[in-house]
Amino acid sequence: MEQEESILDAQAPELHILNATPKTVHWGYFDAGLAPALRVKSGDFVKAQAITHHAGDAPDLMMDESIKCIFASIPEADRNPGVHLMTGPIYVEDAKPGDILEVRYLSMAPRFAYGSNLAAHWGHLYKELGEKERVTIYRIDMSSNQAEAAYAYDFPGKYEIPGKITNCPECDRQKALKGVRVPVRPHLGTAGVAPDVKGRVSTVPPGAHGGNIDNWRIGAGATMYYPVQVDGALFSVGDPHVSQGDGEISGTAIEASLDVMFQIVLRKDFSFPSPLLETPRNWIVHGFDEDLDVAMRNAAVDMVHLLSDHRGLSKDDAYSLMSVSADFTVTQVVDGRQGVHVRIPKTMFALQDEK
Amino acid sequence: MEQEESILDAQAPELHILNATPKTVHWGYFDAGLAPALRVKSGDFVKAQAITHHAGDAPDLMMDESIKCIFASIPEADRNPGVHLMTGPIYVEDAKPGDILEVRYLSMAPRFAYGSNLAAHWGHLYKELGEKERVTIYRIDMSSNQAEAAYAYDFPGKYEIPGKITNCPECDRQKALKGVRVPVRPHLGTAGVAPDVKGRVSTVPPGAHGGNIDNWRIGAGATMYYPVQVDGALFSVGDPHVSQGDGEISGTAIEASLDVMFQIVLRKDFSFPSPLLETPRNWIVHGFDEDLDVAMRNAAVDMVHLLSDHRGLSKDDAYSLMSVSADFTVTQVVDGRQGVHVRIPKTMFALQDEK
Repeated sequence: MEQEESILDAQAPELHILNATPKTVHWGYFDAGLAPALRVKSGDFVKAQAITHHAGDAPDLMMDESIKCIFASIPEADRNPGVHLMTGPIYVEDAKPGDILEVRYLSMAPRFAYGSNLAAHWGHLYKELGEKERVTIYRIDMSSNQAEAAYAYDFPGKYEIPGKITNCPECDRQKALKGVRVPVRPHLGTAGVAPDVKGRVSTVPPGAHGGNIDNWRIGAGATMYYPVQVDGALFSVGDPHVSQGDGEISGTAIEASLDVMFQIVLRKDFSFPSPLLETPRNWIVHGFDEDLDVAMRNAAVDMVHLLSDHRGLSKDDAYSLMSVSADFTVTQVVDGRQGVHVRIPKTMFALQDEK
Repeated sequence: MEQEESILDAQAPELHILNATPKTVHWGYFDAGLAPALRVKSGDFVKAQAITHHAGDAPDLMMDESIKCIFASIPEADRNPGVHLMTGPIYVEDAKPGDILEVRYLSMAPRFAYGSNLAAHWGHLYKELGEKERVTIYRIDMSSNQAEAAYAYDFPGKYEIPGKITNCPECDRQKALKGVRVPVRPHLGTAGVAPDVKGRVSTVPPGAHGGNIDNWRIGAGATMYYPVQVDGALFSVGDPHVSQGDGEISGTAIEASLDVMFQIVLRKDFSFPSPLLETPRNWIVHGFDEDLDVAMRNAAVDMVHLLSDHRGLSKDDAYSLMSVSADFTVTQVVDGRQGVHVRIPKTMFALQDEK
């Protein structure tokens, strides 16, 4: 969304460092009552550490002393009602309910060269594939932007405790996906503002606050617009991924800790009812629901809203344009509240923008 | 699918011309009892005319004498139980149930410079947008590969007769989508083999035979693999589109007649349970069902099948790979039986193929 006038010139932006420590993380929840881990002004930059809650799937490859310290300091019983280890929250000065928090994601760099994919009991084909949980550890090669499987193992027992540390011995490590290379597209699975709810809100289902959207396009170069729900916005980041397919069919992505750089801009000049994504090429609108058919409809209705309220099209024109050029995609089917997103290419409006 | 040995060398291929005439089309149905419009051998090329059943939305721009003759010769009462005007069927020598009909789409050229999008009563947001049907006529510029709206009009009455000819007077033509340009991606909405069913089968719901898949990737450069259901395969093409978004949300694409060139190759060296699409970059598997959640599951199960049976992966490996790199997309939500397709990039297997 272009701004009518720059609100970034008012004050020199600052760069904040937000490392993940036992004092700057919260595990499994958003909470509007949580004390801020950082306070920023609109226009400020933040370099934050996002830690995967799956680091314990290969502790020798995906944990360092800082991460071990976080895992050791947060009791398993305190990781709920969701599963994601979140860094934050970040209090944004002057943010009020009804504002939009624009987050410009600038870079996402893997902290280690390894990540974990779990075929989980909440995965889409859990029954079809023998009711088994299985971990595949991937090695990440950022120079070629590809990942390949390092080894795999059947998960012992059931994966029910977020952050469980599993010391799979060398002898149990099986070869996997020989000769196959996977594109790397680092992104945040979960990021968003605190919902206006008293107490803990699970990080698992995505919603108007953003949260666990699991859209792999939320990476470097993308901008998200989150509808602010509470004073200060209370923005948190977590659930870092290096690769995910649309659908996230096994229940997880390649989960891997990321160092994330972003700029936060407070917007009071427009509103939008759901988390909106802008990439260099597309506008992307998200719909959510337990039923994929309803998620589809929600995304469609909000895209009509974007095209009519923000691009000036009549609703009739918006509807026709969507049918002939907007692509609907299944974001994920494994977060309880499923997701469909719809994207429309910005280039289609190039002539309109010249007016 | 690569072949073990070329079966194309056995006999010099022929090029057949299949123009659309009252004798070479059938409207609204597949029928295993229909007499062939053309007989070909494996390896032969066909240049066929696919005629849009929406030509009547702008008869001055989308019909010529040949098309008028077809419309005049097929009574409205004989256009059922589906809606699509199909050219064919093509009998393929030696094709038997259980074979795969490989159709290599080589070119798709618009017959006229205009196409029609209908916001139909079966569209996804019909109720949300005031229970109105509306036609938007688009002008196609093949030199820039873009289309733009020429004019629009509210459809008088209800769009219930396929091929209805509507002479919208100049004075009722409204401006639409000023300054907006839509990418052109010509493709066949409906193409497939005759189902093994006695009598007429509606062209509307897609299925194992292919049919109304409505995936805009079924264009020039793509190859489809259709599971043969009856002797001779009885392949037909229709429902030509120049632009469609994934979802086809208003109920139709930009519907426009196309001249289509393709090569037919009979494959007896592999099988696959659903219509499979290969593009230069991807393998794409389709799932169908009245419920989008079930369509999603069907696509996922068949992709496991493709990766395990045809790429040699274990099912565990296939499942992990899909979660981290396969993209699930909503093909369409307007054909009664909805569609989800999943694509996986072929480049991921480059190293495996070097073995």
